[in-house]
Amino acid sequence: MALIVHKYGGTSMGSTERIRSVAQRVAKWVRAGHQLVVVPSAMSGETNRLLGLAKELMPDAAAGTPEALRELDALAATGEQVSVGLLALALQAQGLQAVSYGGWQVPIKTDSAYTKARIESIDDTRVRADLAAGKVVIITGFQGVDAHGHVTTLGRGGSDTSAVAVAAALKADECLIYTDVDGVYTTDPRIVPEARRLSSISFEEMLEMASMGSKVLQIRSVEFAGKYRVPTRVLSSFTPWDIALEEEMRSGTLITFEEDEKMEQAVVAGIAFNRDEAKISVIGVPDKPGIAYMILGPVAEANIDIDVIIQNVSHDGRTDFSFTVHRNDYARTMAVLQSVVMPATGAARLAGDAKICKVSIVGIGMRSHVGVASTMFRTLSEEGINIQMITTSEIKTSVVIDEKYMELAVRALHKAFDLEQPSA
Amino acid sequence: MALIVHKYGGTSMGSTERIRSVAQRVAKWVRAGHQLVVVPSAMSGETNRLLGLAKELMPDAAAGTPEALRELDALAATGEQVSVGLLALALQAQGLQAVSYGGWQVPIKTDSAYTKARIESIDDTRVRADLAAGKVVIITGFQGVDAHGHVTTLGRGGSDTSAVAVAAALKADECLIYTDVDGVYTTDPRIVPEARRLSSISFEEMLEMASMGSKVLQIRSVEFAGKYRVPTRVLSSFTPWDIALEEEMRSGTLITFEEDEKMEQAVVAGIAFNRDEAKISVIGVPDKPGIAYMILGPVAEANIDIDVIIQNVSHDGRTDFSFTVHRNDYARTMAVLQSVVMPATGAARLAGDAKICKVSIVGIGMRSHVGVASTMFRTLSEEGINIQMITTSEIKTSVVIDEKYMELAVRALHKAFDLEQPSA
Repeated sequence: MALIVHKYGGTSMGSTERIRSVAQRVAKWVRAGHQLVVVPSAMSGETNRLLGLAKELMPDAAAGTPEALRELDALAATGEQVSVGLLALALQAQGLQAVSYGGWQVPIKTDSAYTKARIESIDDTRVRADLAAGKVVIITGFQGVDAHGHVTTLGRGGSDTSAVAVAAALKADECLIYTDVDGVYTTDPRIVPEARRLSSISFEEMLEMASMGSKVLQIRSVEFAGKYRVPTRVLSSFTPWDIALEEEMRSGTLITFEEDEKMEQAVVAGIAFNRDEAKISVIGVPDKPGIAYMILGPVAEANIDIDVIIQNVSHDGRTDFSFTVHRNDYARTMAVLQSVVMPATGAARLAGDAKICKVSIVGIGMRSHVGVASTMFRTLSEEGINIQMITTSEIKTSVVIDEKYMELAVRALHKAFDLEQPSA
Repeated sequence: MALIVHKYGGTSMGSTERIRSVAQRVAKWVRAGHQLVVVPSAMSGETNRLLGLAKELMPDAAAGTPEALRELDALAATGEQVSVGLLALALQAQGLQAVSYGGWQVPIKTDSAYTKARIESIDDTRVRADLAAGKVVIITGFQGVDAHGHVTTLGRGGSDTSAVAVAAALKADECLIYTDVDGVYTTDPRIVPEARRLSSISFEEMLEMASMGSKVLQIRSVEFAGKYRVPTRVLSSFTPWDIALEEEMRSGTLITFEEDEKMEQAVVAGIAFNRDEAKISVIGVPDKPGIAYMILGPVAEANIDIDVIIQNVSHDGRTDFSFTVHRNDYARTMAVLQSVVMPATGAARLAGDAKICKVSIVGIGMRSHVGVASTMFRTLSEEGINIQMITTSEIKTSVVIDEKYMELAVRALHKAFDLEQPSA
């Protein structure tokens, strides 16, 4: 008997018919002798419907006061509260014992950062007692309660984090994230038809893939999985609910934490990419201590997140400083630079480009293999693709290139690293 | 400065436009210097939508186990949780400080009778602190939390009860129930066009009117108002929100508790009626001790509520025993009587009639005025209406008559007691 946490996304909970199918799948696991905790999202469309109503009453609520954000959270949290009640009834209709809890009832304690709260602790007393009594426990994803008894939400996609955190608190044997894809791929199959599902991926690789916009898992859930070493599997909720349990347990992609499990695997696990960014260069700034802060300080103060940062070597005491921001922040960043940074630094000029993309090769094997980056650069060169920026980490090499070459670059790299072949 | 509780029904909260109008009305009261607590219902249709989803997953949930009822309550309670969040945002958009609470956050403590829980206590600490800080406090109607931290609901119409109970706990100066009628009428204006709105009605009369199916207020809210002497006013949410405060405070119908306020009023306050009942007679039963229990015991055990009960005087050691039940329970009651009661009592036969109605005259003045009942009987006689059953209480006289005479009886009685004329 194992203790298993299931997480189901909004599409899986999208209708009573689909909820019944979730209940049948959960029942199959229970009848195989396992203890089950289920963390569902709101029915698809429901969170948007609720926030849409809020927007009609206060158009700027999401950028509003803490008081407004508090109300938004209490409102949005009802979406999952509906899901858990419906799923509990569906399970009871299957003849199982089931009980649902809102985050405040467990409780899942969070800080008070409304709309993006962080989980601080989970009390497992109540859940363990219910499991011991033979009940399936259903807990709202996406939400918790702060020290003052206010409802908080964890931000979009937060149900993944809730599920992994609950699994960590309960020391669950496995956390299964049922989603609308059947696992993590070497890259996006819509771009590379030969993309292959990975049967496992290391936690660090998953983190890089998630941070690069692979929408399979919310990045904070991956961090949680890593911090507490929760065996987490991403798998499809679209398989028939009655497939054999053994088959289901081998499906999807398992996130692993053991280095040696990866020994035999490929150097590069996958190709990630995103085109949400814009590139900005501050050209001809004096190369002196504190210049990075003089440039990026005002940007950070404007609450703009910065991704890649590159400072070139200097010539004649002047250097070029480049970075990327989210494309939505591009105009605002240019305005801050123009009005604050340019006068303060005496830089020669600004250059910006919103039509870029970032392509990364990700793989824990890169740590111990030389020449991985150079294979990447040679491949892009052979395709005639100019590299504008490069950054590297231990398990990732990213390049910024012209947006129009994105598909070409991803396909070429996927082939160059033999990702269409199953690893040994 | 007064402390005022407002309650808004589902129609008043039925769209963001209407919620904005509620916020404007509340803001008017706040700007006039009052402290405001607002108890809204779910947006109209929402509770039915939620329970409809539940029914798709478990058709018999409402008649189900405590575990199923618990989930239904948690589910249905989200309707009001959405309302309070939206109203708080609408008030904040008006420039007011506002905070919303679910029943569990106040907390409003109830017993554990899911779907029909009773309020046991309300902690006013949090609400008082918010009011003192200048905030409008918005509290979910219809729900509370039991001693084990489970969400409970008070049953349909429970938001009225929530509002009056909150007003009682806070010792509010007045509880204003905004609804889709503009007060309590001498009878249903759809039947008697001359029906007149009462500017006030005694608590006892209101209780009788409510128990007779006058849908203006949930009967438990009236009981609460009486027990804690909460000055409660029923008024229309369809008046423009910006009518003068003085005009609004004089509108609707005030429920009063002082006997002497009623001294000058009419003997009969109103005519109530309902056609939800069916009449059953057990004929020719032995007139011996314990016969009532032999007949009604099995009916009560089948969870069937009994309203009017009449036992005629006996002839030759045999008597006829008649009572009314809800029309929905008619067939089931007849079955119980046939299978259990007839053999046990040796009664001669059963007779039943589902095509009846009950008409009542209600008035606290009846206590001290003789001849009120006889005026009622004479009036019905003059219209050729046969009276099938009669029951009386201190402030109500009810008759059961053929359903087809209902409108005729109500109109004739309304005229006979001069109810179209304002009382002196």
